[in-house]
Amino acid sequence: MKEIVPFELSSEFRDHFQQALNEHDNAAILRSLEDVNAADITTLLYEFSSAESKYVLDLLPRETRAEIIRNLDSDTRKAFLKVYEPAELTELINLLDSDDAADLLNELPIKTSEEVIGLLDPEVRSQVIDLLRYDENVAGGLMAKELIKALDTWTVVQCVDEIRKQAENVPKFYAVWVVDASDRLLGRVALQKLILTDPRTLVKDILDEDDVVSVETYMSDREVAEVMKKYDLESVPVVNVQGQLVGRITIDDVVDVISEQAEEERQLMSGITEDVEEDDSVWKNTRARLPWLLVGIVGGMMSAKFMGLFEDELARITAIAFFVPLIQATGGNVGIQSSSVVVQSLANPGFVEDGLWRRLAKVLSVALLNGLFLSAIVLGVNLLIYGTQPLSFIVSLALFSVVLFASFIGTLTPLILNRFGFNPALASGPFITTINDLLGLTIYFLTIQALL
Amino acid sequence: MKEIVPFELSSEFRDHFQQALNEHDNAAILRSLEDVNAADITTLLYEFSSAESKYVLDLLPRETRAEIIRNLDSDTRKAFLKVYEPAELTELINLLDSDDAADLLNELPIKTSEEVIGLLDPEVRSQVIDLLRYDENVAGGLMAKELIKALDTWTVVQCVDEIRKQAENVPKFYAVWVVDASDRLLGRVALQKLILTDPRTLVKDILDEDDVVSVETYMSDREVAEVMKKYDLESVPVVNVQGQLVGRITIDDVVDVISEQAEEERQLMSGITEDVEEDDSVWKNTRARLPWLLVGIVGGMMSAKFMGLFEDELARITAIAFFVPLIQATGGNVGIQSSSVVVQSLANPGFVEDGLWRRLAKVLSVALLNGLFLSAIVLGVNLLIYGTQPLSFIVSLALFSVVLFASFIGTLTPLILNRFGFNPALASGPFITTINDLLGLTIYFLTIQALL
Repeated sequence: MKEIVPFELSSEFRDHFQQALNEHDNAAILRSLEDVNAADITTLLYEFSSAESKYVLDLLPRETRAEIIRNLDSDTRKAFLKVYEPAELTELINLLDSDDAADLLNELPIKTSEEVIGLLDPEVRSQVIDLLRYDENVAGGLMAKELIKALDTWTVVQCVDEIRKQAENVPKFYAVWVVDASDRLLGRVALQKLILTDPRTLVKDILDEDDVVSVETYMSDREVAEVMKKYDLESVPVVNVQGQLVGRITIDDVVDVISEQAEEERQLMSGITEDVEEDDSVWKNTRARLPWLLVGIVGGMMSAKFMGLFEDELARITAIAFFVPLIQATGGNVGIQSSSVVVQSLANPGFVEDGLWRRLAKVLSVALLNGLFLSAIVLGVNLLIYGTQPLSFIVSLALFSVVLFASFIGTLTPLILNRFGFNPALASGPFITTINDLLGLTIYFLTIQALL
Repeated sequence: MKEIVPFELSSEFRDHFQQALNEHDNAAILRSLEDVNAADITTLLYEFSSAESKYVLDLLPRETRAEIIRNLDSDTRKAFLKVYEPAELTELINLLDSDDAADLLNELPIKTSEEVIGLLDPEVRSQVIDLLRYDENVAGGLMAKELIKALDTWTVVQCVDEIRKQAENVPKFYAVWVVDASDRLLGRVALQKLILTDPRTLVKDILDEDDVVSVETYMSDREVAEVMKKYDLESVPVVNVQGQLVGRITIDDVVDVISEQAEEERQLMSGITEDVEEDDSVWKNTRARLPWLLVGIVGGMMSAKFMGLFEDELARITAIAFFVPLIQATGGNVGIQSSSVVVQSLANPGFVEDGLWRRLAKVLSVALLNGLFLSAIVLGVNLLIYGTQPLSFIVSLALFSVVLFASFIGTLTPLILNRFGFNPALASGPFITTINDLLGLTIYFLTIQALL
């Protein structure tokens, strides 16, 4: 076996390859790619320009070429495909599975895409046109049309014949989907059952109709991911509103959905507004970061304005200012923690929703405990360092209130965002920090005004 | 087809179910579970006590029971299994796939686990003992022993016979793994190939030996997930150091690894130290949050001490204090953004590592642009509001430096953590915020001291 240990792209390999490319040394290029898997060639291409990448791909067999382009991430591919002619694109797309073909067409300028669709093989064309109707974030946009379909009235032999016919179009499948005469999904037959059953048996007699989970075309990609994860499915049939089988989604597409979701959430949590990577341009990186930094700046300027209202107190007792960072940092940390726990439970639904009040009561209990603990520590330290000044008590009292309020806001914000259809993870980032900074400051200075 | 739309557990259903349970109305319990999939019964059980859950499970067929217990999350299961006798556990574990059996045994107290292992069916026992050797975070700990193995010298008929023999033990498989006489992995034969090939053909002649990716037992679960994602695999064979086939990992296990990873990262980013959920106890929720809150408190107390050094300046110009929140919030936001971008590129390896210097140069360019932009805005606003005071210029200068330094630290921290074997995502949470709070304050007051 040609054992494939995960390929590591060394800088030596890259430099060597670059040299071969510069010299247009086709033999050297092909030799160095000989033992490299398509998925790894994709990774390699990220290191080269579109023109260079195309030069390499044109040397490879067209199936490998299609596979490599399929693996590229969407942004890179969009840029890369610009160096291709419509005729070349057509050849490529004819080789792809329908779901990948539709994705690729979506990345082309509309004029090119129309031209390519016109040139496609008729069968591919009709499949692709059917898929292009769907938004890319729903089951219809994730599914592929290639699947093995059998009528319930067929025998196992007929089924195997159908597999033989389709085997070239559907390289990977784990089950045959069984439909009735009007194309309505009835159930599935696992491949191993076909192998083990007498060839004259009717499909309807070995049909597994229990536990066949299907999804509808309009279901969101997140829901599809949840369903496949929950029921441990390697592929799921997609039906339209009439219950007719229209496609299938495989687990590898869903793995991508899950990974993208995690990535998106990380970006929301860290205040990055665009899908940006370290090796994107300086300008793109700057642009992705500015919006939330600006929100922070606005918050900071409002804090400055607000503290200005207490100029007299500050002038009288400078030490008031010393504890502003303490109050704000704690408010921020508590807020993020609380919102993150809520975001997590919103992302793993399924259990009976606790009522809002029960939820808040619990959050407040946790906050009460944390608040008591933290303010006692701070009080102890302050009494030790600064002696029994009124300010020591005020700081701890304000800290306690900040923990309570920040928990409350941290819990409520994602719930509200979720209710209004926004991604609740938005509430785990600079948004909640900025709100809690202002909140903390307000509580602190109001306590001072009331008690000092 | 019994269509399974994702089951939604309503509070009516739960209450109705609870009533049937209280009355020990077995017929009503079974009736209400009739159309519910095992995965959904698992979700339902989270609503009830261990004793109640056991009561329900004892009414169900033992295969369903095993499947439901397999689906439980590890923490809940650990608590739940305490109400089971060793004999009952043995019956359960005999029904599970070897990987799930090993997971379950790992969750038992060592004494119970030893007792159960002694009672297991001999075949199950030897498989499970083999798996228990591995850490749960490596390929060996993820893999199951159940697989269909064929010798390369067999014919397709012999292969199908083997499948027939194994079909009960291995309910889900997509390929037959081919080994030589000394058990070394040679390649795979896809199921559809078995269906389509003449029964007298030798396995070695239809063997797919290209592109067969395998993983070694000691490979980390994250690496396994990367490999399966990259090569779009639905199952991957596991080999030992001698290249002998010892097990297989299926994509559903890896989907769990990917989800857990995302969860873990979210917790690190939000400063939660234990794997905690909203419906865990108040005390567990409190405990999970305290450590990072304490770090924040220590940072805040250090800030207070530090600002104390500048008491004279603060007493002279109170407005200095106004801009502390602005400086700190920006430092925190910039730090998190920077570290998050690095964490992301560390999580998606594969491209040639840019040198550290090139990386930092880029980060500093981005910071330069952001810093210039933000400090210009703040300067403009300050000049408008507070007039041309020296402090207005000092705030903007400090802000600019803070953006630069926070970017720098935000980039370096995850790289350093990663180098020393810690999870770099640690650097996206309260850790980086606390460091940057202190850093921002230091820069601000040093600027003031130098220029005011």
